Amino acid sequence: MQQTIITLLSDFGLKDPYVAEMKAIILSKCPEAKIVDISHEIDKFNIRMGVFVLASATPYFPKGTIHVVVVDPGVGTKRRPIIVETEYGYFVGPDNGVLLLAALKDGVRHVYVIENPLYMLLKVSNTFHGRDIFASVAAHLAAGVNASQFGKEIRDYVEPNFTKPRFQENTVFGEVLHIDSFGNIITNISSKIFKKLGVRESESIWIKLGKKTTALKLCSAYGDVSPSGALAVVGSHGFLEISVNQSNAAKRFKTKTGDLIRVQRRGYG
Amino acid sequence: MQQTIITLLSDFGLKDPYVAEMKAIILSKCPEAKIVDISHEIDKFNIRMGVFVLASATPYFPKGTIHVVVVDPGVGTKRRPIIVETEYGYFVGPDNGVLLLAALKDGVRHVYVIENPLYMLLKVSNTFHGRDIFASVAAHLAAGVNASQFGKEIRDYVEPNFTKPRFQENTVFGEVLHIDSFGNIITNISSKIFKKLGVRESESIWIKLGKKTTALKLCSAYGDVSPSGALAVVGSHGFLEISVNQSNAAKRFKTKTGDLIRVQRRGYG
Amino acid sequence: MQQTIITLLSDFGLKDPYVAEMKAIILSKCPEAKIVDISHEIDKFNIRMGVFVLASATPYFPKGTIHVVVVDPGVGTKRRPIIVETEYGYFVGPDNGVLLLAALKDGVRHVYVIENPLYMLLKVSNTFHGRDIFASVAAHLAAGVNASQFGKEIRDYVEPNFTKPRFQENTVFGEVLHIDSFGNIITNISSKIFKKLGVRESESIWIKLGKKTTALKLCSAYGDVSPSGALAVVGSHGFLEISVNQSNAAKRFKTKTGDLIRVQRRGYG
Repeated sequence: MQQTIITLLSDFGLKDPYVAEMKAIILSKCPEAKIVDISHEIDKFNIRMGVFVLASATPYFPKGTIHVVVVDPGVGTKRRPIIVETEYGYFVGPDNGVLLLAALKDGVRHVYVIENPLYMLLKVSNTFHGRDIFASVAAHLAAGVNASQFGKEIRDYVEPNFTKPRFQENTVFGEVLHIDSFGNIITNISSKIFKKLGVRESESIWIKLGKKTTALKLCSAYGDVSPSGALAVVGSHGFLEISVNQSNAAKRFKTKTGDLIRVQRRGYG
Repeated sequence: MQQTIITLLSDFGLKDPYVAEMKAIILSKCPEAKIVDISHEIDKFNIRMGVFVLASATPYFPKGTIHVVVVDPGVGTKRRPIIVETEYGYFVGPDNGVLLLAALKDGVRHVYVIENPLYMLLKVSNTFHGRDIFASVAAHLAAGVNASQFGKEIRDYVEPNFTKPRFQENTVFGEVLHIDSFGNIITNISSKIFKKLGVRESESIWIKLGKKTTALKLCSAYGDVSPSGALAVVGSHGFLEISVNQSNAAKRFKTKTGDLIRVQRRGYG
Repeated sequence: MQQTIITLLSDFGLKDPYVAEMKAIILSKCPEAKIVDISHEIDKFNIRMGVFVLASATPYFPKGTIHVVVVDPGVGTKRRPIIVETEYGYFVGPDNGVLLLAALKDGVRHVYVIENPLYMLLKVSNTFHGRDIFASVAAHLAAGVNASQFGKEIRDYVEPNFTKPRFQENTVFGEVLHIDSFGNIITNISSKIFKKLGVRESESIWIKLGKKTTALKLCSAYGDVSPSGALAVVGSHGFLEISVNQSNAAKRFKTKTGDLIRVQRRGYG
């Protein structure tokens, strides 16, 4: 029997009963589903952080996985509940852009509004669609219901509008995507853009974060510098990261998500 | 093969090995059990919070689910370990009242003291019955042992003694049951009691929390007011909640669990 | 079909996508694996804490369990990735000592360096071996690949070098192994060493923590003293613990991991 994987991502935290209620709904309707938590520690209402964490994790899941996402400040208002069908699986959540970066990576096939009450709980609250709609829909998808059965196809879904890094006069202009729990500063500068600078490993780069400019060695591992030493590295998701070996770079550089960053090869500038 | 669901609720947190040891015992004795965490972030020793989170989540689980609860300040003393058999499944934990609100909702059939050492670990510590007794008992229940095999039936089990809301002269007197991780103030005022005020949606109510009285609009969703606006809503578990759209109501109103709340329809008072 | 248990222990926290990516890799290669989190809240880079939590939990898992451990400050440097095959199962992680206390308890059979790229991701990063090597290797082990297929056997693996408690002139000299989330002070004084003092239950012992000496009753349960009363107890993992009933002993005694502790029977000294 097919053991479909259903992943969960939310800003619910782990203190309250909310995540467990979603799992209960899923297992009631689809007992053989395999539930994997991506994260429930997304900062409250932070769609941007949800986008990043989701799009980082989903490429590693097998084909057919169903991803349920509940970072949903507009729950119960006019924002629509949707299913995105991709080349690799399904995304279920609110139409606020949180699903789209990950879904676009996978290749979007169809987007459907969730309208059919048959696949929701009998009583749908206006404050907890994660349980009353999204978990229930995911379980029905896992049980074999076709995505087109949930509602009509739409094309005017919300796409997230992120700043893209740009390369200009030997400089890359980017911004901070995410600070992870180690304090690594993960930027939106992909290895592809970064390569345009022509920096080789062990060479130094200038980075400007806030008002401060610092020279950092381009390393391939955190341990390439001494403990407490700062470094630049193309991280495990393919983005330029600023890190401090065995310590917290975000605290060292007083950086937060959304901050601008400029990068140059040393000697240019 | 039957994949019985076993849920876990505790105040153990997720840093220590304790929760994993319970899961190890369960899977050693019943490899096909499906374990679902309800929460391990119950405030330490806070039976009242355990009662609320348990009774919120359990109605969504399928028939036959076994709920293991370890909020157990009296571990190793005279308080008894018990199994509550209900119309829908089983509750396993200490006889300190933490199981009973959820169990009463499901309909209590029998309560048994756990006495039979056959179903405990060979060496039972006095400080970790969650592992040495409750996890082991749950696994044996899941494996098909009849609840009556664990010990004698009792009727003098501890029932939690909660303040009930009351309606008097156009006013509802209640208290704060729980502050969730969003800062929503969840009261013990059920929709049934609240309806006695005769307030319709979009009308305002007066609420008194501490010394402060505030007029709030009765909404059906958080997004019915602007971001940072306060509102009242009957939440997804059927209780009156005081919330702030995309912000933290408990901080705004300086409220904590157990605080008294008075509610009136605007115009009466 | 065999549902091998794979446990995960790391210092990744639960906010980021890292743990989910490891689970995705495992389930992609071995869909029937049963994944159990031991803890992801190990203090960042704290190998010693990882050692303690791992060695506490693993004895409760069934034979054949595969334990994956990623407390790995040296990731991407010369430290080797290894598999330890024991009498009871397998440990997969970095060769920095974190696996060894637990593995020695189980009885070490062979230690192999992980070298065969066949069992790693196609592209191995230098910053996330948890995903690119360890999770992948664990899944292949679970799927039946023999441990000797991953690389050559070694004997010069790193062993953790922990202070052992010693008994001298009616005194036990030990240190604090771990502060759990309740604030219990767990020492490295095993019940075997402690017994040499000849203290019987309900008798008092002198403990010296920092500069302060305190008399504590040797109890068998936390509830043997009144709430907020301090006590000594041989805990559920067989070590002497200093606790405060329903409160936080580490705060009361201003104690942290690594602090020295001296214990005497009252009347001697």
